[in-house]
Amino acid sequence: MKIKKKQKLAKEWFIKLQNIICNNVEQLEKEYGSNKKFKKKKWKHGELRIIKGEVIEKGGVAFSNVIGKFPKEFAKKIPGTKNNTNFWSSGVSVVFHPKNPKIPAMHFNTRFICTQKNWFGGGMDVTPCLVDNKEKKYFHNELKKTCNFHDKKYYAKYKKWCEEYFYLPHREEPRGIGGIFFDYKMDNWEKDFSFVKDVGITFAYLAKKIMEKKMFLKWTQKEKEIQLVKRGRYVEFNLLYDRGTKFGLNSGGNPDAILMSMPPNAKWK
Amino acid sequence: MKIKKKQKLAKEWFIKLQNIICNNVEQLEKEYGSNKKFKKKKWKHGELRIIKGEVIEKGGVAFSNVIGKFPKEFAKKIPGTKNNTNFWSSGVSVVFHPKNPKIPAMHFNTRFICTQKNWFGGGMDVTPCLVDNKEKKYFHNELKKTCNFHDKKYYAKYKKWCEEYFYLPHREEPRGIGGIFFDYKMDNWEKDFSFVKDVGITFAYLAKKIMEKKMFLKWTQKEKEIQLVKRGRYVEFNLLYDRGTKFGLNSGGNPDAILMSMPPNAKWK
Repeated sequence: MKIKKKQKLAKEWFIKLQNIICNNVEQLEKEYGSNKKFKKKKWKHGELRIIKGEVIEKGGVAFSNVIGKFPKEFAKKIPGTKNNTNFWSSGVSVVFHPKNPKIPAMHFNTRFICTQKNWFGGGMDVTPCLVDNKEKKYFHNELKKTCNFHDKKYYAKYKKWCEEYFYLPHREEPRGIGGIFFDYKMDNWEKDFSFVKDVGITFAYLAKKIMEKKMFLKWTQKEKEIQLVKRGRYVEFNLLYDRGTKFGLNSGGNPDAILMSMPPNAKWK
Repeated sequence: MKIKKKQKLAKEWFIKLQNIICNNVEQLEKEYGSNKKFKKKKWKHGELRIIKGEVIEKGGVAFSNVIGKFPKEFAKKIPGTKNNTNFWSSGVSVVFHPKNPKIPAMHFNTRFICTQKNWFGGGMDVTPCLVDNKEKKYFHNELKKTCNFHDKKYYAKYKKWCEEYFYLPHREEPRGIGGIFFDYKMDNWEKDFSFVKDVGITFAYLAKKIMEKKMFLKWTQKEKEIQLVKRGRYVEFNLLYDRGTKFGLNSGGNPDAILMSMPPNAKWK
């Protein structure tokens, strides 16, 4: 398949997925009785959608399609840029910060990046502030099922990658309970694309399931405080280590879109 | 003068300055009627003091004296590490996040770093969330007086350095109203040390003056909201760009001491 065709298909999928995820959330807000909707902000290279709801205190679903040149130093870390730093990238990124501290923060991203090479990357992970082993088991089990459908080796490999990636070395603590993470996926385009689509659908489904289960539960002020401190850790990870944030800021991304991952509020003790 | 002697003098000064600054703040809390004190936390390489007061909502004054080896990649950016990545460093760092949104956040740091070379660095800057041109003028004028006493060229040079340094490129906005910033200062040790001491005393004095002037003023919820969003920008700068934060995390610093600069809370819209 020609690269232009791949780009077209990937881009169309990301736009579709953005709609699916946003619809799911708006449905959830409706079930809760809030009727809060996403606000859409178009920009040069994409569309950012932000919701400030009653279930999701602050959530962002960003579609982007950026074409440009990497800064020279940054390009060194990116495959296929040795003789040419031009890139084409498209993807969808999601961060949900639910209001209820019993519901974990949720993150998802998939992207297709083209330099002289082209590959998919992405994943999802979940950051609870209160322990819920049943939820952890459910989440990982669903991910495993999705992965296994495509390749029996994926789950263990991408789970490990996620654990290593979403880690705060200065705190010596993981960001959350993990998930799956993959990058530079360029084995077989059709196979990879089908996996990426499935990961997206799995996220849309899981996010709704996890929130639905807990959105009516009551919480205490103490639990809210724990959530705010945990959100501080989330900020630390994203600004100190997250490659997506650095990629965005180094590739002419929209700061509002890149920093939509910031929680509505956070505390430091 | 031998390097050991220089290190001893610098270290003793930083400890003394930590005491002066903390005393000033405790006095201020007393004037306000709060009687809140710093809590001291000793660690392997220094002492961190944190106050959660009524004037200063969260403030940290950290003394540190770290001896170690720089990670190889990081050392490339540090003078005097070509054949030997060992370092000795000592300094004092201060960040104040006042409760009253009419009072700016204040930051100060001075340090003495020894590799195969040795130099002073430091500075101070002020981050208001509400405009106060009178205060800005007063602050810069006092800095200018201190600088001029040592060298007529310092103020313009270090003010510019500060403006360039405390800038958020992704937001295209300065962190605050500037101040002075200098690094790799190795002209004449005695002269440099005397300047560094004067900068420290100037900060201790200015911080008290600026807070005293406004600590009894009333504020609105709207002003508090503006402060919380501005604190979010403060977090972004410190985690995305601050060299001190990166230096600390790369030189075996104490994460609690390094991240004492984090505000007590912050918001993202």
